Amino acid sequence: MTEPAPFQRVAVVGLGVMGGSFARALTATREAPEVRGWCPNADERRAALDAGAVMTAPEALREALHWADLVVLATPLPVVCDLISGIADNGLANEATIMDVAGLKEPVARAAAAAGLSNRFVGAHPMAGSEASGFAASRPDLFDDAIVWVVAEPEADARATRVEALWRSLGGNPVRTSASEHDRLMSLASHLPQLIANSLAAALNAADIGHDDLGPGGRDMTRLAASNPEMWAPLFEDAHPDLIGTLRTMAASLGHMADDLESGDIDALVSLMKQTQTWRTS
Amino acid sequence: MTEPAPFQRVAVVGLGVMGGSFARALTATREAPEVRGWCPNADERRAALDAGAVMTAPEALREALHWADLVVLATPLPVVCDLISGIADNGLANEATIMDVAGLKEPVARAAAAAGLSNRFVGAHPMAGSEASGFAASRPDLFDDAIVWVVAEPEADARATRVEALWRSLGGNPVRTSASEHDRLMSLASHLPQLIANSLAAALNAADIGHDDLGPGGRDMTRLAASNPEMWAPLFEDAHPDLIGTLRTMAASLGHMADDLESGDIDALVSLMKQTQTWRTS
Repeated sequence: MTEPAPFQRVAVVGLGVMGGSFARALTATREAPEVRGWCPNADERRAALDAGAVMTAPEALREALHWADLVVLATPLPVVCDLISGIADNGLANEATIMDVAGLKEPVARAAAAAGLSNRFVGAHPMAGSEASGFAASRPDLFDDAIVWVVAEPEADARATRVEALWRSLGGNPVRTSASEHDRLMSLASHLPQLIANSLAAALNAADIGHDDLGPGGRDMTRLAASNPEMWAPLFEDAHPDLIGTLRTMAASLGHMADDLESGDIDALVSLMKQTQTWRTS
Repeated sequence: MTEPAPFQRVAVVGLGVMGGSFARALTATREAPEVRGWCPNADERRAALDAGAVMTAPEALREALHWADLVVLATPLPVVCDLISGIADNGLANEATIMDVAGLKEPVARAAAAAGLSNRFVGAHPMAGSEASGFAASRPDLFDDAIVWVVAEPEADARATRVEALWRSLGGNPVRTSASEHDRLMSLASHLPQLIANSLAAALNAADIGHDDLGPGGRDMTRLAASNPEMWAPLFEDAHPDLIGTLRTMAASLGHMADDLESGDIDALVSLMKQTQTWRTS
């Protein structure tokens, strides 16, 4: 006995790592819904078709939109907001649910409210991705065991419940939260590590250390430096105050570390290492 | 046709991740030499015996030393230096080669010179390890494809060549270098990422973010925060000037990032992300 699929006709807009992986995972489920894919690049649409990720990949966005009962917006954040603003005029079916997968949920919730679509909008953010980009980097198991944050206004609650069932069918673990809690958490748990990886990579580059010189630890610590700047830039345009504050805290902490190393007084450093060991292994 | 094993009787002193993995890898080679293991903890000696990593594990260090033609010092750095200082009086066989696997090569080279053992001493540093500690975290494939830095004075050149053959038999890729070049590289490629992981973990901890809240990127960026402070502390007691200088560079860079995010001017940040993407993917 399987539950009926929560959606029958899914349009995936954007066929990069996230949209491509979503389409591939969805197509691989039992009793998969029909999946149409769209993105502006014809080669990427062709790649998604050839991989069997989507059943059709129309050239016109409208042909995916007007038909779907679920529209998945898997584009960079500002494009998600633009699409939400124009989607009602762009052939959206009357009862369709709209979901996005962007890394911040307050801007998309604001866009949905401004478009009068809060009752049909469900924000989702799977804690999964890749430092690579494009359909070629997508994979059907990307969401296995991934936490998927789900945000919806009370009037979209029933739709959010169906969206959660959909994510479970893809292997994800949906967790309901609020846009503001989500965005603070992401600023620290996701955006901060990204910026630290960039800063570390820039420092190593400036010191003439190649990434081939790194061991497993250094490679892990700079993997995110390969991430797509185009995808990240919009997430930093409206940075959370806690991200800014924590960057300043870390800047001070690195300065203290340098002072302690210079004076040969490493007690504070060892104490910090013990605390973080406890935090990381608890 | 296999080459004759470069050593016949190997004493491994220290049975943690590095020593334990070395013993396990060595015992698993074709025509493995006899391997004796020693460490101060009887439970760890028993674990190494039970796992078949060593053939004997005498209670007295001298019983491993006097017999060996290769002594592998796989203890924290200050213990390596102490062992080198006392090893000639502690029953070392006349022709034995001494090798260590510590993360800095200048202090051990100085200790070997002070003990009059430079002609028998080969420093090695495999770019492999684990954030976990103890024999339980050892594994026989730890050195597969790992770069192994090898440092020796000219009078120990023939021994260094045999040590390199030994590392190749364990799957490693030995690369000869100098102690000073090695230590600068490690300060930046290994010690810096370690400190950055600790600083990031401390900042997340202070912001009430649990490690369970992290996605794959954040988990990678804090994995090293679980590392053993006891192992690392000695490496920081005599910190390389380039490590101290680069920490200060990064502190300034994070401050600039915070300023740019606060003012909403992210051009410099995007430019830095593009540079590091090129560095990491080239």
